[in-house]
Amino acid sequence: MTTAQRVVIIGGGFGGLHTAKSLRNTDVHVTLIDRRNFHLFQPLLYQVATGALSPANIAAPLRDIFKRQMNTEVLLGEVVDFDVEKREVILRDGRIPYDTLVLAAGVRHHYFGNDQWEEHAPGLKTIEDATEMRRRILLAFEAAERETDPEEIRKWLTFVVIGAGPTGVELAGAVGEIANYTLKNNFRRINPASAKVILVEGMDRVLPPYPADLSAAAQKSLEKLGVTVRTKAMVKDVQADKIIIGIGETDEVIDSHTILWGAGVQGSPLGRKLAAATGAELDRAGRIIVQPDLSLPNHPEILVIGDLAHYAHQTGKPLPGVAQVAMQSGDYAARLIKARLKGETVPTFHYRDLGNMATIGRAAAVADLGKLHFTGFIGWVLWLFIHLLYIVQYQSRILVLIQWAWNYITRNRAARLITGEHRLPPADHESQPPQAEETREKELV
Amino acid sequence: MTTAQRVVIIGGGFGGLHTAKSLRNTDVHVTLIDRRNFHLFQPLLYQVATGALSPANIAAPLRDIFKRQMNTEVLLGEVVDFDVEKREVILRDGRIPYDTLVLAAGVRHHYFGNDQWEEHAPGLKTIEDATEMRRRILLAFEAAERETDPEEIRKWLTFVVIGAGPTGVELAGAVGEIANYTLKNNFRRINPASAKVILVEGMDRVLPPYPADLSAAAQKSLEKLGVTVRTKAMVKDVQADKIIIGIGETDEVIDSHTILWGAGVQGSPLGRKLAAATGAELDRAGRIIVQPDLSLPNHPEILVIGDLAHYAHQTGKPLPGVAQVAMQSGDYAARLIKARLKGETVPTFHYRDLGNMATIGRAAAVADLGKLHFTGFIGWVLWLFIHLLYIVQYQSRILVLIQWAWNYITRNRAARLITGEHRLPPADHESQPPQAEETREKELV
Repeated sequence: MTTAQRVVIIGGGFGGLHTAKSLRNTDVHVTLIDRRNFHLFQPLLYQVATGALSPANIAAPLRDIFKRQMNTEVLLGEVVDFDVEKREVILRDGRIPYDTLVLAAGVRHHYFGNDQWEEHAPGLKTIEDATEMRRRILLAFEAAERETDPEEIRKWLTFVVIGAGPTGVELAGAVGEIANYTLKNNFRRINPASAKVILVEGMDRVLPPYPADLSAAAQKSLEKLGVTVRTKAMVKDVQADKIIIGIGETDEVIDSHTILWGAGVQGSPLGRKLAAATGAELDRAGRIIVQPDLSLPNHPEILVIGDLAHYAHQTGKPLPGVAQVAMQSGDYAARLIKARLKGETVPTFHYRDLGNMATIGRAAAVADLGKLHFTGFIGWVLWLFIHLLYIVQYQSRILVLIQWAWNYITRNRAARLITGEHRLPPADHESQPPQAEETREKELV
Repeated sequence: MTTAQRVVIIGGGFGGLHTAKSLRNTDVHVTLIDRRNFHLFQPLLYQVATGALSPANIAAPLRDIFKRQMNTEVLLGEVVDFDVEKREVILRDGRIPYDTLVLAAGVRHHYFGNDQWEEHAPGLKTIEDATEMRRRILLAFEAAERETDPEEIRKWLTFVVIGAGPTGVELAGAVGEIANYTLKNNFRRINPASAKVILVEGMDRVLPPYPADLSAAAQKSLEKLGVTVRTKAMVKDVQADKIIIGIGETDEVIDSHTILWGAGVQGSPLGRKLAAATGAELDRAGRIIVQPDLSLPNHPEILVIGDLAHYAHQTGKPLPGVAQVAMQSGDYAARLIKARLKGETVPTFHYRDLGNMATIGRAAAVADLGKLHFTGFIGWVLWLFIHLLYIVQYQSRILVLIQWAWNYITRNRAARLITGEHRLPPADHESQPPQAEETREKELV
C-alpha cells in the first residue's frame, strides 16, 4: 500500500500470530495469509474431537484479532509456491510481493509412507479432523447398540489410539472417560463402560519426551480410565476393521472399527516448495533447517518459524513442535525485523523452555516444569490455568472456563453431535455375509 | 422388550420430544427414532447461520435427554416406509414393530417446484444448512475484499433473503447486523457497512401472519439495520449470480452472489409414504390431514403431530408450523395414549395460542401475545427470556445466555468460522472472461 517495508506472514497459527502481533505499532506493512479465516488453539483440538468443546470455543476469527492493528492485513488465500528472485508469494490466484517473508505453515499428521492408513485411522490437525473423529467415536457406540453379533459389538467397542505423545495420551484418556462416565445410562443394550481403549506406542513408555516419573504417572492415570497401554509396539498395518502391531518378534491383531492416529507429523508441503526455491535443506520430517537467526542460507529476508522450522543450534536436537516454540520464534522474528529496520543486530534465537504438560481425562495431568514435576489433580489445575491464559480471545476464555467447570462437575460432554454427511451404521438383526463388512466400513468413512 | 404397549415415535424435534417426555413414568415402552443423535432448537438455527452461536449451543444429545427415563429407548436410524398392516416401521436396515405410531418427522424447505434454485439459494433446516449459510455469508465478504472489479464487489456485497416470515426476517436482520457492526474494521479494502441486504416477500408486508402494527414495527427495525424490504415481489428465477423478481407487471434483476432461502416448506417425504400406506389425505404442502384427535382415518393407532400435521378443526385454517403447536400436539398425543390404556377418552386436540415472536438484529423484536403487542427492546427482552426458558438442556441455557450477553455488549459473533470442504474464492486482479463466472460460483457451492 505504501513504501513501508512489506512483511508477508504465511500461517495464522501460534507462530504467525505472534510475529504479526509483535509488529504492531511499527512502520512495516504486515500481510497475514491463511487458508482459514480463524486462528485455532490446537492444544485443545482433542477436546473438540471428544465432544467437550465446540469448534468456536477454540477458534478466533483472524480479522477480529487484528481489527485494531491497522498496519496488518489479513488475506484468506492459498499459497502454492514462491518466487524468491522476484520476492513474491504465489497464490493459487495471484501474487503478493514481500520484503521479508515469514513462513509459519506448520505440520500435518503423516503416515510414514503408508498413506492408505489415513482412511482407517484419521489424524487430528484441523477442525474438520476433529469433527470427523468425534463422528467416528460416537457412531461406534451407536453401531454397537444396534448390532446383535457379539463379535461385531466387540469390534465397535474397541478403540485404538496410535502414538502415546501428548495428543495420543489426551485422546485415549478422553475416550476412556466418554466410555466410563459420559455415556453412562445412554444406551439400553450395550454398556459403554465395557469398551476397550488401547493406546499403542513404539517407544518403551507413554509421553516419551517427558521425565520417566511423569510417564509412569500418566500411565497410571490412563489405566484408571480403563485404557490399556501397549508400549514397544510397532504399527505394521491398519485396515478397515483391524490393526496389526508387532511386539518384539511376534505380530498381534487387534480387531477394531475405530482407530485414531496420534503419531507422526510432517512439515507442510510449502516447506518443500520453499526449500526447492532457496536451496535450503529439509530434515526427514520435511522441516526446513534454519540458521541460528531462523533465516535461510543466502536468504536473510526469509524466516521460518514454529513447527515447520528445524532449529538444532541450541541443544543439538531440533526444538519440539509445541506452541511455546512457535510463539517464541514468532516473537523473535518480529524482533529481528524491527532491529534490521534500525540497522541493529539481535543475538541468535534462544528458546526458553517453560515446561510441558499433558492432561489425562477429567482431573489428572502431568506437568514438567524443569526441576518441578506435578501430577494428578494439581497438575491438572496447573494445566487448566495455563491453557486458559493462552486462549486468544477474551470471550472464549470465559466460555471455555464455564464449559469446563460444567464438564468437571457433571462429566458431561454436551458437544457430542454427529454432524457432516454420513449414512447411518446398519442394524444387524440378521447376521451378515462376510463381504458386507467392507460396505459397512465404507459407509462410516 | 416386554408385553408393554409399544409406542414408536419418529422424529426428535419438539413434537417427538414432548410425546416421549410426557410418557415417562408409564408402562408403555417408547422407541424414539431419529436420523440425528440430537434434538435441535430450530428457532435459533439462524443464529448459527450468522455466527452468533455454535451448533452445540442449540443442540442436545437425545440419549442424554432420556438417560434417566428408563422406559424410553433412542434409536439412531433412517425410516424409509411403513407396513401399517403388520404395524411395523421399516428402517433402511430393519423393522420396528409398534402398537401406537407417532409420526413427528417435520418439514423441509422447498422451492415450489424449482429444485434447481436450491444450489444458489440454500435453505435453513439443519445444522449443516446453517454452517453452509454461515460459510457463504462470510466468504462473500472475503471475496469482495480480494476483488478489484467494482461490479463484482457490488455483487459480493449484495445479499438477498427470500421470504419475510420469521426465518427470513431474522436472517436479514442478522446479516444487516454483521455488515454494519460485527465486521467493522475487519477489512482493509472494502467497507462491510456498504453491503446491501434485500428482503423479498410476495405478500404486502413482512411477517404476514402477524398483526399489521407489528409488521410495520418489524420493517422499521429492519430498515434501521440497512435492510431494504421489497414486498409484493414474486420470485421468478434464481441463478448463480442474480435473482429475478416480478413486481406487478415488471420484472427486475438483482445481481447478487449470496441468495438465502427463507420461504416455503414442505412435509417430510415420510408424510407421503404414510399417506400412501393408510389412504390419508395430504394437503398441497405435503402435510397429512389429521382427525380431531390427531389420528388418521381408520387408523386410530397412528398419530401425526407437529409441522407435518394439517389440523384445521379448530379455526378452519391449518395450525401454523411453530414450536408451540408441535409441543402441545406432542403432549396431547401422550395424553391420548395414556387415556386409551385406561379405557378412557379425552376431548379432541385444542391448540392454545400463547403468542408469536420474531427478533430483528441486536435488540429489537416483535411479540404478538393476543391483545398485547410488544416491539423494540421490550419485545426483545421478552423474546430472549422465553427462548431461554425453552432451551432443552440446563447447560445450554447458561452458555447461550452468556454468549448472548457478550454478543449484546460487544456486537461480536465469535462463531464466525468458515468450515467444511471448500475452495477459496479467487482473487480477481485481472478481469475475468464472462465464462469464468460460472466456475467461481461452482467453487463456492
